[in-house]
Amino acid sequence: MTETFFERHKATLDQALEAITTRGYWSPYPESASPRIYGETAAADGEAAFKVRLGKTFELDQPGGGAPLGGERSPFGLALDIGYPAPDIEALIGAAQAALPAWRDAGPQVRAGVCLEILDRLNKASFELAHAVMHTTGQAFMMAFQAGGPHAQDRGLEAVAYAYADMMRTPASALWEKSQGKHAPLRLIKRFHVVPRGVALVIGCSTFPTWNSYPGLFASLVTGNPVIVKPHPEAILPLAISVEIARAVLTEAGFDANLVTLAADTTEAPIARDLCLRPEVRIIDFTGGSSFGDWIEQNARQAQVYTEKAGVNCVVIDSTDDPKGLLRNLSFTLSLYAGQMCTTPQAIFVPRGGIQAGDEHWSFDEVAQKLAGAVDKFLADPARAVAILGAIQSKKTLARLEACRTLGEVVLAPRALADPAFPESRIRTPLILTTEAANRDAWGRERFGPIYFIVATDSTEQSIALAREVILEKGAITSAVYANDEAVLAEMEQAMMEAGVALSCNLTGGVFVNQSAAFSDFHATGANPAANAALTDTAYVAGRYRIVQSRRPAD
Amino acid sequence: MTETFFERHKATLDQALEAITTRGYWSPYPESASPRIYGETAAADGEAAFKVRLGKTFELDQPGGGAPLGGERSPFGLALDIGYPAPDIEALIGAAQAALPAWRDAGPQVRAGVCLEILDRLNKASFELAHAVMHTTGQAFMMAFQAGGPHAQDRGLEAVAYAYADMMRTPASALWEKSQGKHAPLRLIKRFHVVPRGVALVIGCSTFPTWNSYPGLFASLVTGNPVIVKPHPEAILPLAISVEIARAVLTEAGFDANLVTLAADTTEAPIARDLCLRPEVRIIDFTGGSSFGDWIEQNARQAQVYTEKAGVNCVVIDSTDDPKGLLRNLSFTLSLYAGQMCTTPQAIFVPRGGIQAGDEHWSFDEVAQKLAGAVDKFLADPARAVAILGAIQSKKTLARLEACRTLGEVVLAPRALADPAFPESRIRTPLILTTEAANRDAWGRERFGPIYFIVATDSTEQSIALAREVILEKGAITSAVYANDEAVLAEMEQAMMEAGVALSCNLTGGVFVNQSAAFSDFHATGANPAANAALTDTAYVAGRYRIVQSRRPAD
Repeated sequence: MTETFFERHKATLDQALEAITTRGYWSPYPESASPRIYGETAAADGEAAFKVRLGKTFELDQPGGGAPLGGERSPFGLALDIGYPAPDIEALIGAAQAALPAWRDAGPQVRAGVCLEILDRLNKASFELAHAVMHTTGQAFMMAFQAGGPHAQDRGLEAVAYAYADMMRTPASALWEKSQGKHAPLRLIKRFHVVPRGVALVIGCSTFPTWNSYPGLFASLVTGNPVIVKPHPEAILPLAISVEIARAVLTEAGFDANLVTLAADTTEAPIARDLCLRPEVRIIDFTGGSSFGDWIEQNARQAQVYTEKAGVNCVVIDSTDDPKGLLRNLSFTLSLYAGQMCTTPQAIFVPRGGIQAGDEHWSFDEVAQKLAGAVDKFLADPARAVAILGAIQSKKTLARLEACRTLGEVVLAPRALADPAFPESRIRTPLILTTEAANRDAWGRERFGPIYFIVATDSTEQSIALAREVILEKGAITSAVYANDEAVLAEMEQAMMEAGVALSCNLTGGVFVNQSAAFSDFHATGANPAANAALTDTAYVAGRYRIVQSRRPAD
Repeated sequence: MTETFFERHKATLDQALEAITTRGYWSPYPESASPRIYGETAAADGEAAFKVRLGKTFELDQPGGGAPLGGERSPFGLALDIGYPAPDIEALIGAAQAALPAWRDAGPQVRAGVCLEILDRLNKASFELAHAVMHTTGQAFMMAFQAGGPHAQDRGLEAVAYAYADMMRTPASALWEKSQGKHAPLRLIKRFHVVPRGVALVIGCSTFPTWNSYPGLFASLVTGNPVIVKPHPEAILPLAISVEIARAVLTEAGFDANLVTLAADTTEAPIARDLCLRPEVRIIDFTGGSSFGDWIEQNARQAQVYTEKAGVNCVVIDSTDDPKGLLRNLSFTLSLYAGQMCTTPQAIFVPRGGIQAGDEHWSFDEVAQKLAGAVDKFLADPARAVAILGAIQSKKTLARLEACRTLGEVVLAPRALADPAFPESRIRTPLILTTEAANRDAWGRERFGPIYFIVATDSTEQSIALAREVILEKGAITSAVYANDEAVLAEMEQAMMEAGVALSCNLTGGVFVNQSAAFSDFHATGANPAANAALTDTAYVAGRYRIVQSRRPAD
């Protein structure tokens, strides 16, 4: 008998199950793109595989028909010119429902094995996925490789581990024996079935199509639900490749490939609302803007809904004993992917009276100028700048970057940079503004993109209070503080706990507030308006299936 | 140092944590009302404690004011004449919010200890609670003792165990250490806080005020949420006593008693809708009718909502090798608490061509007549009948029992019985009707009370299909089947799994389809319209809190 997928990946699953209980560092998918790890030809093969996709129809052999659709154009200038299967919602839902029973009856172990095999093959496709992510999101190549490949795979595996652990907590059967004193005991055999909710829908975003979609995709799939993947119309390719790989593994394992299908659409003819309201759709995972996310939460009442939306991430600067480290750390944070991460700070609160910085006192203006200067210097070398900034994914963000110049006093103006490899790239350095706490209309709502406000406050106490307030009102996925005094750190931690947001303290080295490591960091919390769920905890997986029991006399 | 509540109850908690993983028989709270277990004077003391409550104001020393309200009248005829604190919603919510931080910061262990102490004291008050449950719900005394006392306490502890296990899955802190090759590793200390959602609301029902409320009450409380308890206006006393006990233990443990408050109301001036829509209310547990439950699910969008509503429980009779056992078992099931359990069957499907019953063949009419005869005989002795049937809780049910006589052919007409101890009791024996499968309007919607339909079908195959259909449409909490053929049992199990309902097979002995044992049976599933949650699984507890983390350099 040949080895099953479950047997093949059992050691990895066991390590993942251990990692989610200790939450130290762990990752099974190497983030280094080194040929020593991925193979001498992996990089070239991946690029070639990507290029073969261009200008063609992406065949998936899934139900439906009609003229292929698509219109992705790389933020680096390349027209992808790929046509995806036109979605036939009725057919996709019907096919998903037809595929469900055998997948449900296969049980948690078989499903986990298949999911780990899919993740393993996604890992092997990391270079191809990197190019696909790069040329849809605008992420620079190395980030597209790491965040779009192994880090996304980590998050997928994390969801599998949480769901598997939860499914296995209830035994498949039990003997219930109740003593009746002198009489024979009552004895029943009970069986407990894991029953999926129904058809699951995953709605991807334009900036992290794989990283933000894999958790919902794998959490739903491993718990027995067929999944329809609806990518953002500008970032279809990474998910189309992912769906293709999932379908291949499912087929190989003897299951219906229609357990995972692609429902691509265009900006002109969106289908997400229709999908969300279908009564057969019982689970929805959404990443994207707050207004559509809120709409789903309000309207898709038949489904269990998990959303990650927008917010105003905050940094409170009180003091630091490592001013250079602070500037270095924040320069990277504000530059990485040109602020297009849901974890990048937007509002940086600094007391009007300035801060203690090592042995020096920096006035508010000095803090602003030093931070602007540090970012400017960090991005002075064009080659490095392009490799960090990537390109601006959306033209709307480009327009926003210009429009926001008037929202405060400009301490760093955005510059357009050129990427020699891609002359038509939309590359911009950050805009940094200073403003007053009272100007909340400017800094206190999400300004997606490399747009940062250094906000003058009366005191650190006010900084913390403002951060807490704006996060409770608008939501946030990250917060950070720089302070020498343990009492200030404790006050911030208490406030951020009440605001329901993850806090990073005194990051001056090689870890950045906008990075979130699977198996250790929870991404979002569900406790403020930026998201109604966290990646990943038990609450994220437990509602995706139900336990249905039977019982009968044991004798 | 004196023993903490956690230390005092740790062994019980450990056993509960073990029980939820094995789901065999376990209960820490004895269901036997024997004086050898509860003490020689426990019964008399409990009755005296109950009687002292009558005709008085129930003092709780909670915020608010105004004239006491109430109007409970026992289905056995007794006017309780108890006045409860008039609820001041604003004050109760404010007090709950003020009480939250210290309770949150106490952590899972301290909270679990306090919850187990509350449960222990509820257990010691089981006799008093039994009288309170009896004289609000109409349950006969022994059932009121068991279901309202120890079995309800079991369900409360089960919820504590699930929630505690889930909270403890994430460590309080972790060291994250990521190798950097030749460089020093990146090291972060991470802290993970369990943060409650906010104010929790528990809305009780009139038939099982404690059994159906304790799971939500304890699940919310142990995860750090203050709880406002809103009883059914006709069944306040059991929950008022429970709230009183909880407040005493909380005070003794050094916490704010307003972590658990009572919001009593009257049928004339209901407050549940207002409470449900308060933005501060972040968790709602509801047991009751489908229309209000559905309304809460649709409208209380700010809250995590858990509902248990109504449905049409089904029995499929195909064949049996123990006809006497079948009749005995169903007679008890249809008589117990006069069908006022959410687990009692309503529709009993029998093939028009009859069934194999041991060595005999019974025609459809014979099945109906034998079942009607068995129920009639089972309730022939008035003393036993009264002790099993209890009284009819609601006058609406009494009226329904009369109105439903015309919905089919009467094979057993309801009779009024007298309880010598309570001459004004509303005691009725069941109504059993036969009807055709086509008459779905009659049998296919919930007819709460001792109203049963024996439904003639073309075949067992149709019986199973009808059960599946009606459960998917209207919901159900239980189903049952009698069949000799393993293939029929398997077909029924498959259908009921798809309908998302618990199945009992061939119960002919001392276990009944309407009984659900904590730590072993899941009560409801959340997979059909009768409920959106199950008592108790991880999904029932995990959404009641969030994990909020902080991280800082370790060095």
